[in-house]
Amino acid sequence: MRHYFPVFTVLGGVIMLFSLTMLVPLGFSWGLGDGAHAVYDEAILATLAAGLFLFLACRGEKRELQPRDGFLLVTLVWTVLPAFGTLPLLLAIPGLSFTDAYFEAMSGMTTTGATVLTGLEHLPASLNVWRCFMVLLGGMGILVLAVAILPLLGVGGSQIFKAETPGPMKDEKLTPRIAETARGLWAVYFTVATACMLALHAAGMGWTDAFMHMCSVMGLGGFAGYDASFGAFDSPLIEAVAIFFMLLAGINFALYFLAWRQRSWRVVFTDLEARFFWALMAGSVALVTVLLLAHGTYPDALTALRHAAFSVISVATTTGFATVDYAQWPIFAPVLMLFLCGFATCAGSTGGGIKLVRSLLLMKQAQREFTRIVHPRAVVPVTLGERVVPPEVLASLQGFMLIYGAVMTAATLALLATGLDVITAFTAVVACLNNTGPGLGQVGPSGNYQGLSDVQTWICTLTMLLGRLELFAVLVLFSPGFWRK
Amino acid sequence: MRHYFPVFTVLGGVIMLFSLTMLVPLGFSWGLGDGAHAVYDEAILATLAAGLFLFLACRGEKRELQPRDGFLLVTLVWTVLPAFGTLPLLLAIPGLSFTDAYFEAMSGMTTTGATVLTGLEHLPASLNVWRCFMVLLGGMGILVLAVAILPLLGVGGSQIFKAETPGPMKDEKLTPRIAETARGLWAVYFTVATACMLALHAAGMGWTDAFMHMCSVMGLGGFAGYDASFGAFDSPLIEAVAIFFMLLAGINFALYFLAWRQRSWRVVFTDLEARFFWALMAGSVALVTVLLLAHGTYPDALTALRHAAFSVISVATTTGFATVDYAQWPIFAPVLMLFLCGFATCAGSTGGGIKLVRSLLLMKQAQREFTRIVHPRAVVPVTLGERVVPPEVLASLQGFMLIYGAVMTAATLALLATGLDVITAFTAVVACLNNTGPGLGQVGPSGNYQGLSDVQTWICTLTMLLGRLELFAVLVLFSPGFWRK
Ligand SMILES: [K+]
Ligand SMILES: [K+]
Repeated sequence: MRHYFPVFTVLGGVIMLFSLTMLVPLGFSWGLGDGAHAVYDEAILATLAAGLFLFLACRGEKRELQPRDGFLLVTLVWTVLPAFGTLPLLLAIPGLSFTDAYFEAMSGMTTTGATVLTGLEHLPASLNVWRCFMVLLGGMGILVLAVAILPLLGVGGSQIFKAETPGPMKDEKLTPRIAETARGLWAVYFTVATACMLALHAAGMGWTDAFMHMCSVMGLGGFAGYDASFGAFDSPLIEAVAIFFMLLAGINFALYFLAWRQRSWRVVFTDLEARFFWALMAGSVALVTVLLLAHGTYPDALTALRHAAFSVISVATTTGFATVDYAQWPIFAPVLMLFLCGFATCAGSTGGGIKLVRSLLLMKQAQREFTRIVHPRAVVPVTLGERVVPPEVLASLQGFMLIYGAVMTAATLALLATGLDVITAFTAVVACLNNTGPGLGQVGPSGNYQGLSDVQTWICTLTMLLGRLELFAVLVLFSPGFWRK
Repeated sequence: MRHYFPVFTVLGGVIMLFSLTMLVPLGFSWGLGDGAHAVYDEAILATLAAGLFLFLACRGEKRELQPRDGFLLVTLVWTVLPAFGTLPLLLAIPGLSFTDAYFEAMSGMTTTGATVLTGLEHLPASLNVWRCFMVLLGGMGILVLAVAILPLLGVGGSQIFKAETPGPMKDEKLTPRIAETARGLWAVYFTVATACMLALHAAGMGWTDAFMHMCSVMGLGGFAGYDASFGAFDSPLIEAVAIFFMLLAGINFALYFLAWRQRSWRVVFTDLEARFFWALMAGSVALVTVLLLAHGTYPDALTALRHAAFSVISVATTTGFATVDYAQWPIFAPVLMLFLCGFATCAGSTGGGIKLVRSLLLMKQAQREFTRIVHPRAVVPVTLGERVVPPEVLASLQGFMLIYGAVMTAATLALLATGLDVITAFTAVVACLNNTGPGLGQVGPSGNYQGLSDVQTWICTLTMLLGRLELFAVLVLFSPGFWRK
């Protein structure tokens, strides 16, 4: 146990920092006079005290952190912070169970955006700010995790994230240490976030709404301040702004960092993965628009395009905002959208799913099999851009895909065993594992996760966590070899 | 074109042989006096003439067949024979469309057992014999394909089938040539088939019923002579016999061949894959029995065990007989059963799906990733039994799994685009791709494929074919490299 004290010390520090982030909803509560400020006072004190206690209790033991400690730390951060994140929710909403509060906080910190709450517009505004702000924080964590930590830990072929994207970790002259990478990414993240908030305000949102929905857009999270989600605004202009920034947040943030360093946007527009992402979004929107027109779902092409563009991009980028009940569309469309959310966002973005670069590699591997069958003796390396991807990275990726499929199957079977219907169970798992939020059936765009039983809620909570930490960071803790000295 | 004449010559020969197999239903028609014999006369003459014409037209061109020709030949055999197999159906059933007849014949030759026909008991008995006999023939083809041809062609890691099973191809002293392998396998196949038919008759079936349901059991096919499938007999004894022979047919037939050669059953009972298969069946039956009892679906434990055992083993072995409408069971059970059919049968059996040996390897690869993450520098080979599986075989297997997933997704989306509901579309694809037969929803155990539109039927037909030929044998024909000299 003492061996892990240095990990706990770092965790204590992170918890203390986390307590300070609650100053943001506290500020909103004061400014808006919504009467909820005592909630944050108590939550901050309790969180700060807990973090300080952990920090002081464990800091006697000193040693250098190893890569292996990274798994433990990352999993602890994403399970313990949501526990403290529940405090404002539990204090402000009478009768809310810990199960539901933890789901909600986990949904925020994993930028999933699935909710168990209804009557959002009747909550203190600062509480919605807190929900959304957790998405922004979760996004910050994910950027560092995806760009700096996972490639270091070698999870599921994520070395290709580093190798392929001209990100901070690749160029030795860029800041190689995690802390500096984090600072660079966050500077970019907040710059884009500020632009997003200003644009949403300019498009017609009040400042509070602009702030909270900016948080959700940047984290590709999907929490909203209204039960009707983005439908509450019913504004094509606001939707257009959201679409624009979802498309920006769906690519590797390291590209922006590099563009800023090089004083040129060229790296962004020549990146293979980013171009593929945008092309995929455009193609999918076009396809769904044509489908909606062919089925006469909307009277005119412009309306069909508007709703297709928002819904497809919202789901495919794993954001999960809703403006219309797309579950009522011809069923091909929502299934396609849920399929896209499994792989469409880029590595190094705040999006969920297996990431586009992994999908590209998988496609190339499948393609290679055909060549191999026709020319059994040919040596066909798998390449990405101009690089040959090493076989051990491909093997890692395969292992990742297998676990991904196994987790999806196991979670679906577990939900079915609790008596949930097939559509709800399967799409809830897809939506949680890919950190998207809305599925179909009971958890569709017009419903939410409130109707689930406690056991079902915990299964979904665990699935969100597994998806967000790219499975291995959590699962490796359960492998017997991990704890052996 | 002339380059492929030698392939067509072989195809012509196979078509001629196929025409002779129609003597079997002709014999039944005479014996039973069902008045359908003219149907077979015409079908035999037309098929024989077509085969002879092809044989004579192409036999001028002579060259040694290459492995690459194998893909073309295998795909031609499994697309052209069903076309001739439709003749008795089209001649005997007025108003039957070619689309439906081809689906039915393909369903037989791929041992899928999905049907578009109703009122089976009102058809001439010999026509049901022909439907079921196509399953037996399909099973013969599959044994040779799986044990001798696919490993030679190196499809989807199927080299492991050869490497791991102590089959005819492995031991150099056994008959290494395909023809002799085929003869050995078929001798075993017909021995077990005869035992199966005698046992079914002894359990209470008439000889005609015993013959046709034996065909379905041996091919793990699932065609029956009654709309109610095995439910028509309502006999626990008959069900027990069917279960026993489905469990025998689900393992590698090369094991029986070897057991016969060695005059010892030891090879059968020590085979890793076979033991895993039986254990998996026993465990799944136990699980479903407990579930049915817990939900009070059946009044007593024995009834629950009876129905659980038959339905689970029927679906998991990709047979697809039904005795009860298990779609009405707690949904966990039918979904588990459909999940099992994707991988539970052994390589070298007549079953569908990816095969248990592939699943075992995939599990081991996933496991290896955990070891790799904890010990990044460790070299961890993937083993099967005592052998190390070569990396290129693993890579092949990965490619296979990717294509398998892609075909499943594409076929489901295609069915959804035609307006089918999600449950029917997805389970129909699972049931066709794994050559199982019944899915859920419209194509569930109490329904069939009759209600599908022509386009939907063709999608399912193609999916059955792809599944049966392990994807690559068909798909490689569409890769540009294949036709290049
Ligand atoms: K999301
Ligand atoms: K079958």
